Amino acid sequence: MEIPRQQFIQRLPTIKKAIDECDFMAIDAEFSGLHRPGTSKRIDTLANRYAEYREATKRFIIIQFGMCTFKWDGPSGRYISKPFNFYIFPTAMTGKVQANKTFMTQAQAFDFLSKQQFDFNKWVYQGVPYMTLEEEKAYIRDATQRLNDAMPDIPIDEKERGFIEAARKEIDAWVANPNPEDAEGVNIIAKNAYQRRLLYQEARNRYEGLVAEGKPGFIRIARLSEKDMNKRTEERRKQFEKDCEGATGFRRVIDWISESKKIVVGHNMLLDICHVIGQFVEPLPEDVQDFKKLAHRVFPNMIDTKHLSTYVPEFQPLFGSSTSLDILRFETNKAEFKNPRIDMDWEFPRYLTEKAHEAGYDAFMTGSVFLKMVSFLDKARNSPEEVPEEEVEPVEEEPKEKEKYDDGWEKSDDEEQDPNWLNEPEEIYNHGSTKVDLLDDQQKPVPILEEYINKAAMVRTGFEYFNFVNPEVITRQSNTFYVSTNSGPISCDYVSKLFEVFGKNVVDVIDETSAFVVYENLREKPDIVKESVTQAAAASAGAIHDLTIKTVGDYLDDIQRDS
Amino acid sequence: MEIPRQQFIQRLPTIKKAIDECDFMAIDAEFSGLHRPGTSKRIDTLANRYAEYREATKRFIIIQFGMCTFKWDGPSGRYISKPFNFYIFPTAMTGKVQANKTFMTQAQAFDFLSKQQFDFNKWVYQGVPYMTLEEEKAYIRDATQRLNDAMPDIPIDEKERGFIEAARKEIDAWVANPNPEDAEGVNIIAKNAYQRRLLYQEARNRYEGLVAEGKPGFIRIARLSEKDMNKRTEERRKQFEKDCEGATGFRRVIDWISESKKIVVGHNMLLDICHVIGQFVEPLPEDVQDFKKLAHRVFPNMIDTKHLSTYVPEFQPLFGSSTSLDILRFETNKAEFKNPRIDMDWEFPRYLTEKAHEAGYDAFMTGSVFLKMVSFLDKARNSPEEVPEEEVEPVEEEPKEKEKYDDGWEKSDDEEQDPNWLNEPEEIYNHGSTKVDLLDDQQKPVPILEEYINKAAMVRTGFEYFNFVNPEVITRQSNTFYVSTNSGPISCDYVSKLFEVFGKNVVDVIDETSAFVVYENLREKPDIVKESVTQAAAASAGAIHDLTIKTVGDYLDDIQRDS
Repeated sequence: MEIPRQQFIQRLPTIKKAIDECDFMAIDAEFSGLHRPGTSKRIDTLANRYAEYREATKRFIIIQFGMCTFKWDGPSGRYISKPFNFYIFPTAMTGKVQANKTFMTQAQAFDFLSKQQFDFNKWVYQGVPYMTLEEEKAYIRDATQRLNDAMPDIPIDEKERGFIEAARKEIDAWVANPNPEDAEGVNIIAKNAYQRRLLYQEARNRYEGLVAEGKPGFIRIARLSEKDMNKRTEERRKQFEKDCEGATGFRRVIDWISESKKIVVGHNMLLDICHVIGQFVEPLPEDVQDFKKLAHRVFPNMIDTKHLSTYVPEFQPLFGSSTSLDILRFETNKAEFKNPRIDMDWEFPRYLTEKAHEAGYDAFMTGSVFLKMVSFLDKARNSPEEVPEEEVEPVEEEPKEKEKYDDGWEKSDDEEQDPNWLNEPEEIYNHGSTKVDLLDDQQKPVPILEEYINKAAMVRTGFEYFNFVNPEVITRQSNTFYVSTNSGPISCDYVSKLFEVFGKNVVDVIDETSAFVVYENLREKPDIVKESVTQAAAASAGAIHDLTIKTVGDYLDDIQRDS
Repeated sequence: MEIPRQQFIQRLPTIKKAIDECDFMAIDAEFSGLHRPGTSKRIDTLANRYAEYREATKRFIIIQFGMCTFKWDGPSGRYISKPFNFYIFPTAMTGKVQANKTFMTQAQAFDFLSKQQFDFNKWVYQGVPYMTLEEEKAYIRDATQRLNDAMPDIPIDEKERGFIEAARKEIDAWVANPNPEDAEGVNIIAKNAYQRRLLYQEARNRYEGLVAEGKPGFIRIARLSEKDMNKRTEERRKQFEKDCEGATGFRRVIDWISESKKIVVGHNMLLDICHVIGQFVEPLPEDVQDFKKLAHRVFPNMIDTKHLSTYVPEFQPLFGSSTSLDILRFETNKAEFKNPRIDMDWEFPRYLTEKAHEAGYDAFMTGSVFLKMVSFLDKARNSPEEVPEEEVEPVEEEPKEKEKYDDGWEKSDDEEQDPNWLNEPEEIYNHGSTKVDLLDDQQKPVPILEEYINKAAMVRTGFEYFNFVNPEVITRQSNTFYVSTNSGPISCDYVSKLFEVFGKNVVDVIDETSAFVVYENLREKPDIVKESVTQAAAASAGAIHDLTIKTVGDYLDDIQRDS
């Protein structure tokens, strides 16, 4: 379902209902740019990667956001999904909400989107605007000031002094001697916004009991009865409330997703999460640890399908190193991933034909792949002896003979004979697929997911993945070393230089006194590197003499033994 | 005529012809943003204004450019215009031209454009790319390297060592013993761009006489005969030349306009000129005087219709202070601006219905308004006694009875009777309007234009207009003072503070020892300000004691007397 700006407010209940009722949801986003520093680095530190993503959230914006909810439907034995696609554009939501947002666009990103038939007119003409919490507060503060006539005065330009004096004379004359044909007010012609604002200010400051009202081409200064005054106040209050409601804009959807505390699935989702938080919640903190806390607070249950596909051992023989969303979609369409059946809600017909790379469809694909993978894993780990296919298949009478609509819904046998079939009570067909457990009664992930929740794929770093709740782990890889010292803080520069004799490397700090060194491309044997660097460290002047260097294999063995 | 990216190269001759043949051209541009610092300043210095425009050229880009050429057509007694509309988008012109441009977008600017039905899809999907001279040089340097196989080597990743060794073995085996079924080459499967590049590098460095050719999914390592090798070299050379030609992109049009040295008309054109030069020619210099030289070199004959409408005394009673393009268009459609007649070339039918705020149409309007204004002025100054209307009107037989097409072309009488009318030699109808002189035989502006050429409108500054070739002038306005000293460089801060007792002001430097002080809003009489500030200056400690202060009226009188 596409949600254009013009229908956003009226569609909110539909969106809220989908979030409230679902078992989990998947998200995806398209950006105005993905600019990376023009580096040839093939590996990066965690801190650098986060700094790069954080910088991206300051420059670029999400221009399309997809959310797809998935709800288990017992009677029909399948999941019903509701994919939403939002274009996001920081326009003014109402005439009165003024935002002046600028953002970066990367030509290559638009080139890429144009290859996916991205509709840039829909983006600008129908994109939903948004405010962060801080922006909303500032907006409400200003709007409250306007509501209470408590706006700060502006100085009167010398050029407009004549205008204002003429206006005062006119108003004074009318107050002294109201026009018999229009006893309630006097109209003053204003040529521009500045003159209009001056007239509001005059009415407010000089004329107790008179109000200024903007009209086309002029300002009406009028005396209102108490009743009219109350009515006016009430109208303005209502408009104020409506404006404030509209001001939140798309952030409302993010708030709802966050409040639901449900599982949020993404594919290679770290950058998406950075952008979602930076754009709709608050600017990202400088420190990556602070970001982890913030992200975990906003989305307490995240699952990354790319991470899942890479780190679940059972998937290795199936997917190998191909973990793009397209490939996973293709692989999980195979027979061994038959369960569960997933259909789209009949009110969400946009994706009956595929639209890969539209955020709403990619969210649908991501959530589908997730369900299939977890179901597969559940069967593999919890009931490996079960004969698959037949047992979960419902008993059907020649199901393959039946005609189907394009969307997979079966035609009822009555349909062709009886034109009134739509009025018949619908007989619910059970597809016989089985529900996939995700969270337990305490809203904790089921054991299968425990190991994978709140971790996101992170390529080209020394670490295996980004961990939203714990420190990242490092693997038993031959290009990595552990370094520690007892004599005060460790210097990354110094360590990096020490190791540089064997090639380019990055240093990922663990804590004040220890770090990992990861080579981009190490040709020497780890033990030789260890020996040589240890000697060099001991020999070098002004150095940390008690540097301990371990291969990452030894380091991991030591940890295991100690624990 | 809209020029989409896909037709740009083939339309170049049409564009070149229009520029070559025309008497002058008008331009207009739409931008991705017009962000101004959030200041309440009602007046600004020249240096600040230029700094602000220069900053804008670094952030925002021209996304639509209009050029309309105007050519006097003697036989038909009218001007024929050719309006071109270009969407501009910094995409890659060919697959091989890689640019990674980022630019700022201001949401409000897109909001404004969407009110004018701007087509953002045309912008991204059909926008013409461009390179500055420097970018083009860098591109040609890289392309030449590729052509000559002189690319720098990349290091071989440890992970790919196995791949490369296997590839070498395969190639060596084939060299030793060519495959009988495919004796000319061997195909090596490459999984990614990195592997492909490594294979090119191997072929280049290790195998004399073998070449690598990219194929879908694999690289073919082949031995070419001398003839085939020459053919390949020739093909690559041709592709190289084509790529280099394409790389210039839209800058070619700007280069042609510049080389023509013809009059370039704009409306409120200073910002347009800043952007055109900054985006297509070279980054703007820091100093405004350097910018003037650069701009004058690129466009030696500029005329700003906004400036013209404001400063030509004859237009004061006609236009007053309303000098927007829409208003000027409306006013110059009146009877006194009848001459000359302006039609669009029949091959340029896009604007038979109006499309205000599309750059191509705004350029057409600007050029039309310009012609009408100069013709009016010429008549007013050079033949004021002439009875207008009748004398320039041609003798026509009941012209108003004739049927017309929507575009104003008359239907020939034959047309309805004779279906072959299109084959008849066209009888040229003379509209009887008169040509407007612009440049003389030495390409110098005619006397009427001398005073207005190379000056651009500049609102909210102490100066009357921006002067591309001379220092700006200041007017006899009561809020302005002249300050000079004989004791070394004048300090703007010091002077501004001295004058601040009478209100906010800006200081516009004239030269090392003199400046203008302009008040935003002065309520005191100029003579009192002069007296008071002179005394304060004399009294203040650490001050310049020989400060001379004049009202701008006295200053201008003094200049006039001295000259």
